[in-house]
Amino acid sequence: MSRPFNFSAGPAAIPEEVLQQAANEMLNWGNSGMGVMEMSHRGKEFISIYEAAEADLRELLAVPANFKILFMQGGGLAENAIVPLNLSKGGTADFVVTGSWSQKSFKEAAKYAHNHLAASGEASSYTSIPDAASWQLSSDAQYVHICSNETIHGVEYQELPDLKALGCDAPLVIDFSSNVASRPLDWSRVGLAFGGAQKNIGPAGLTIVIVREDLLGHALDICPSAFNYKTVADNNSMFNTPPTWGIYMAGLTFQWLKRQREGELTGVAAMEARNKAKADFFYDYLDHSQLYVNKVDKACRSRMNIPFFLRDESRNEAFLAAAKERGLLQLKGHKSVGGMRASIYNAMPMEGVRALVDFMQDFERTSA
Amino acid sequence: MSRPFNFSAGPAAIPEEVLQQAANEMLNWGNSGMGVMEMSHRGKEFISIYEAAEADLRELLAVPANFKILFMQGGGLAENAIVPLNLSKGGTADFVVTGSWSQKSFKEAAKYAHNHLAASGEASSYTSIPDAASWQLSSDAQYVHICSNETIHGVEYQELPDLKALGCDAPLVIDFSSNVASRPLDWSRVGLAFGGAQKNIGPAGLTIVIVREDLLGHALDICPSAFNYKTVADNNSMFNTPPTWGIYMAGLTFQWLKRQREGELTGVAAMEARNKAKADFFYDYLDHSQLYVNKVDKACRSRMNIPFFLRDESRNEAFLAAAKERGLLQLKGHKSVGGMRASIYNAMPMEGVRALVDFMQDFERTSA
Repeated sequence: MSRPFNFSAGPAAIPEEVLQQAANEMLNWGNSGMGVMEMSHRGKEFISIYEAAEADLRELLAVPANFKILFMQGGGLAENAIVPLNLSKGGTADFVVTGSWSQKSFKEAAKYAHNHLAASGEASSYTSIPDAASWQLSSDAQYVHICSNETIHGVEYQELPDLKALGCDAPLVIDFSSNVASRPLDWSRVGLAFGGAQKNIGPAGLTIVIVREDLLGHALDICPSAFNYKTVADNNSMFNTPPTWGIYMAGLTFQWLKRQREGELTGVAAMEARNKAKADFFYDYLDHSQLYVNKVDKACRSRMNIPFFLRDESRNEAFLAAAKERGLLQLKGHKSVGGMRASIYNAMPMEGVRALVDFMQDFERTSA
Repeated sequence: MSRPFNFSAGPAAIPEEVLQQAANEMLNWGNSGMGVMEMSHRGKEFISIYEAAEADLRELLAVPANFKILFMQGGGLAENAIVPLNLSKGGTADFVVTGSWSQKSFKEAAKYAHNHLAASGEASSYTSIPDAASWQLSSDAQYVHICSNETIHGVEYQELPDLKALGCDAPLVIDFSSNVASRPLDWSRVGLAFGGAQKNIGPAGLTIVIVREDLLGHALDICPSAFNYKTVADNNSMFNTPPTWGIYMAGLTFQWLKRQREGELTGVAAMEARNKAKADFFYDYLDHSQLYVNKVDKACRSRMNIPFFLRDESRNEAFLAAAKERGLLQLKGHKSVGGMRASIYNAMPMEGVRALVDFMQDFERTSA
């Protein structure tokens, strides 16, 4: 059976091999007589699952030894509070707002920090990212927050800012919810990265936090213990019962990622090559189309989330219905932006993007 | 294939029918072409799953219309902070400490409230629950916190306290993580109930909160938005992306609960009859045994978690190894109490308790 192609922005498509393995092991993992959801998180079976997931993610993302990997709960929106609770020290936090997600982070942090808008893409309706050289960074910032890929507006940093080169010693915090593991990451420029798992890694309800050790231990007194990074790190993510199923599914996804090949490349490097090819193919089609348009600055177009519009918006419903008929699911754009959006995370093969473009060509023809 | 019996305290056994259905639907739920983990939480497919789960839980627990059911993240330990963040108004909160879990709640709340120890079972090493008539309740308490079943110490309220009859107008908050849905609940005595799902309802990573509407809207300014009950309620648990898989699994468990029958009884009433029969059978065996002992006051013995000890503790490892050999898993007691623990939640059939007693009789014989 061939499955439809699912372009959901998140929760999003999961590789079929991963789902199949999860189904096969549902009642009896590794001959333990238990399903993964039925295991004590402190038993040797689940500990082995947790340790493999942690090690595989560390290998895939080349996370240095002086960073801790935490498996938490609450998603990106909870982290918008948890990050300043842990890092702000009640002082200044700088934000670069490039779309809905960094805007939400900026707003929530005001409860716990003196937050400062260092730069904003608002003037361009968030179709571009302000050049780092123009950012108004605070001299006393405890950290600088960016969203490395804006899921809704479809803008993505093609390179992380080098704060040191800008004369800023504060750690960079990145919300990488929607592009984690889609491309390599330069940890020398990062202090902390966080993301909900439900786009590129696994099911909703799991949050990944990767944090440099020197940033642990500075939480405000009002930080809930379950969200104090040091407490979580000291307990290997088991201060409270972790989202065991989410960690298991993420682990299966990491194993799948390690098996991926593109020519000589493996793992995240292979994914980057594949993701670049998928995105280039799709943007090239959009840019040559008479019916469809993407408005994002070419310098910062997302490889993961591609919002586009029909020039004749009266055709939107017909487009979505015909796409579904062709097995192309969840293409409706976010309500705040409108139009369409194709989310093409790691689990989306080139074949799915080709099927979408084939359909869009056919639809354009019948619309002419 | 007959599965082993899994006595884990949590994450805990899940009904085999539920796991089988989850496996069957893993790649294609309801002919949608998507697995549940791949669905947008805002799409009609997942909304139908969420709405059914909410309605079924409301029916099973007979939750009145003036209570909201929230699906959250973070488990009981996070709620230890989230409850006072939402209810304390920075004032007094009363606690009745009857074991590890209420002790943790008491300690964490000190960050957000003037917490007051109204009563404690410490003098009895948490083998009994202080009589409600003896509780030293504060006249200005914003709420009174109890843990309705202590998973580690094995004590359970056989009836919820009637605070009004004690001259206290404050709402009762109960941590029902480990006995939710195991017996009916008198909502006229409750203001808020919370619990991690991973014992009686579903996978770790889902938290259930059931809260009376008049308690919404009083959160402290420092409460993270994702954990503000009013924000969560106003957004039908979708302010942030909810733990969709957990809600789905809980929903399957609720459907399973609705199918259960004991004589004329169905649903939670049937479970209560079954749970009482299971616990009575097991305690009766322990009380007549020469090798095993349970130290909990008979008036407050838990139907869910039964800690017991071998009078000859040098036999502990042999006991656990022989039990595993017989397909009886995860019987080791919590490290803070030692000995053994049999957790016999809803998903444990009488057949499993009989198998455990059969084994324990055989082991006692060979140990004589």
